Amino acid sequence: MSIPLDDRGLLLGDGLFETLWVRDGVPADWAEHMDRMALGCTALGLPAPDPDTAWTSAQDALRQAGLLSGSAALRMTWTAGSGGRGLDRPAEAIPRLFATAAPMTPSLGPLHVITARVRRNASSLTSRHKTLSYLDNVLARREARLAGADEALILNTDGHVACASAANLFWLSQGRLLTPALDCGVLAGVTRAQVLQRALEGGLETAEVKLGPDALAGAEAIFLTNSLMGVRPVWSLDGRRLDPAAVPTWLAPPRA
Amino acid sequence: MSIPLDDRGLLLGDGLFETLWVRDGVPADWAEHMDRMALGCTALGLPAPDPDTAWTSAQDALRQAGLLSGSAALRMTWTAGSGGRGLDRPAEAIPRLFATAAPMTPSLGPLHVITARVRRNASSLTSRHKTLSYLDNVLARREARLAGADEALILNTDGHVACASAANLFWLSQGRLLTPALDCGVLAGVTRAQVLQRALEGGLETAEVKLGPDALAGAEAIFLTNSLMGVRPVWSLDGRRLDPAAVPTWLAPPRA
Repeated sequence: MSIPLDDRGLLLGDGLFETLWVRDGVPADWAEHMDRMALGCTALGLPAPDPDTAWTSAQDALRQAGLLSGSAALRMTWTAGSGGRGLDRPAEAIPRLFATAAPMTPSLGPLHVITARVRRNASSLTSRHKTLSYLDNVLARREARLAGADEALILNTDGHVACASAANLFWLSQGRLLTPALDCGVLAGVTRAQVLQRALEGGLETAEVKLGPDALAGAEAIFLTNSLMGVRPVWSLDGRRLDPAAVPTWLAPPRA
Repeated sequence: MSIPLDDRGLLLGDGLFETLWVRDGVPADWAEHMDRMALGCTALGLPAPDPDTAWTSAQDALRQAGLLSGSAALRMTWTAGSGGRGLDRPAEAIPRLFATAAPMTPSLGPLHVITARVRRNASSLTSRHKTLSYLDNVLARREARLAGADEALILNTDGHVACASAANLFWLSQGRLLTPALDCGVLAGVTRAQVLQRALEGGLETAEVKLGPDALAGAEAIFLTNSLMGVRPVWSLDGRRLDPAAVPTWLAPPRA
């Protein structure tokens, strides 16, 4: 399969994607990811993919990549489909679906984080949904790599802590588990929701907050979450060392 | 030609584009557009396209579309090329170039503009360069269409007037020609620069400004510019009528 030159995902970043962890051919949290994509479609004004077609497409991609056993990363991409010249979508958008799968190598090494210069636009739907217009995330990650780090902390345009370039952010402070509120311009991460739920069940007080980066200065531990890595402790933020062992392992949903 | 599923332009909006007006097979301001794309490449950390290859690609696209005579719109797209899973680019990015051409229908009707809810992120390179992560522009245009208008005025995250979804913005106020400064999060439009130059030569005082939307309330005329439409007067902004005939026609570079 390949994509024609008039695809609006290719030309304008008009579309959505999901990344899922797959174990032995079974995508974890499939329904949650498809629900999130459907919410994104509503926000962007696109029809949502048919769940059965998406499932078949995912299975085909995993089979073709020889990834029906072991751990894999599955990406579901939903573009706004082909269109004419310019920004306006055609009267009847016919989105385009494709699935791609890759072997998954667990990320286990030290994780060093720096604060990126690029800010997250809390006013934009692109900050709340996993869209194909992902260049700010790419450039935040690039900033981190150029600084010799692994990931970027991103503040939003109001100066509040938002997330990392490809992960949600949590920290422990005075016995509470804190994470930026969704309206800071934060993707409603599937793992983020699971961690909040596990904290609740484990008796750990949580709060979704709107705070500046100073709030992280006193953090006892910081960690990142996404569907592929689950929970991953931060080893340093802007050069300040953190104790990766201070992240409670029971908060992490099972992963590879 | 088609694009493989691992293209980073398709997957992440990682890349750039240019749109040019073409008359009888000759793209207007070719050098200016290629220079701007090269600047964008520097900002994004990508190698720039070879100008000769780009020119050949443009001519091929025009020929194949049967657009070597009359007016046409040419789009040059430069993606970050194929990559592996995730945000990090491969060690040696090999970008992918393609050109597409479409017949150009001049936009001559009344132009009604509304102010979009989405804000432009002045901290992001995507606001200063013509990147493939263009969804905010798509959604601003969509807001305008849903409101029965033709185009969207976009403020930036600091509340300053920035641009339209696919055009730069100018207005006349007390005998001066004003346009948002580039660091408001504004693309350095080729036509924008030409209009500023023509104003200078014509003895019309100009200023690049950082002002809120109140500055437009007293404007005697408002117009939009881009490479395809040249100068286009605004007929109304958020319901307030404006006189399209108050835009000096001599400011417009020649177009279709």
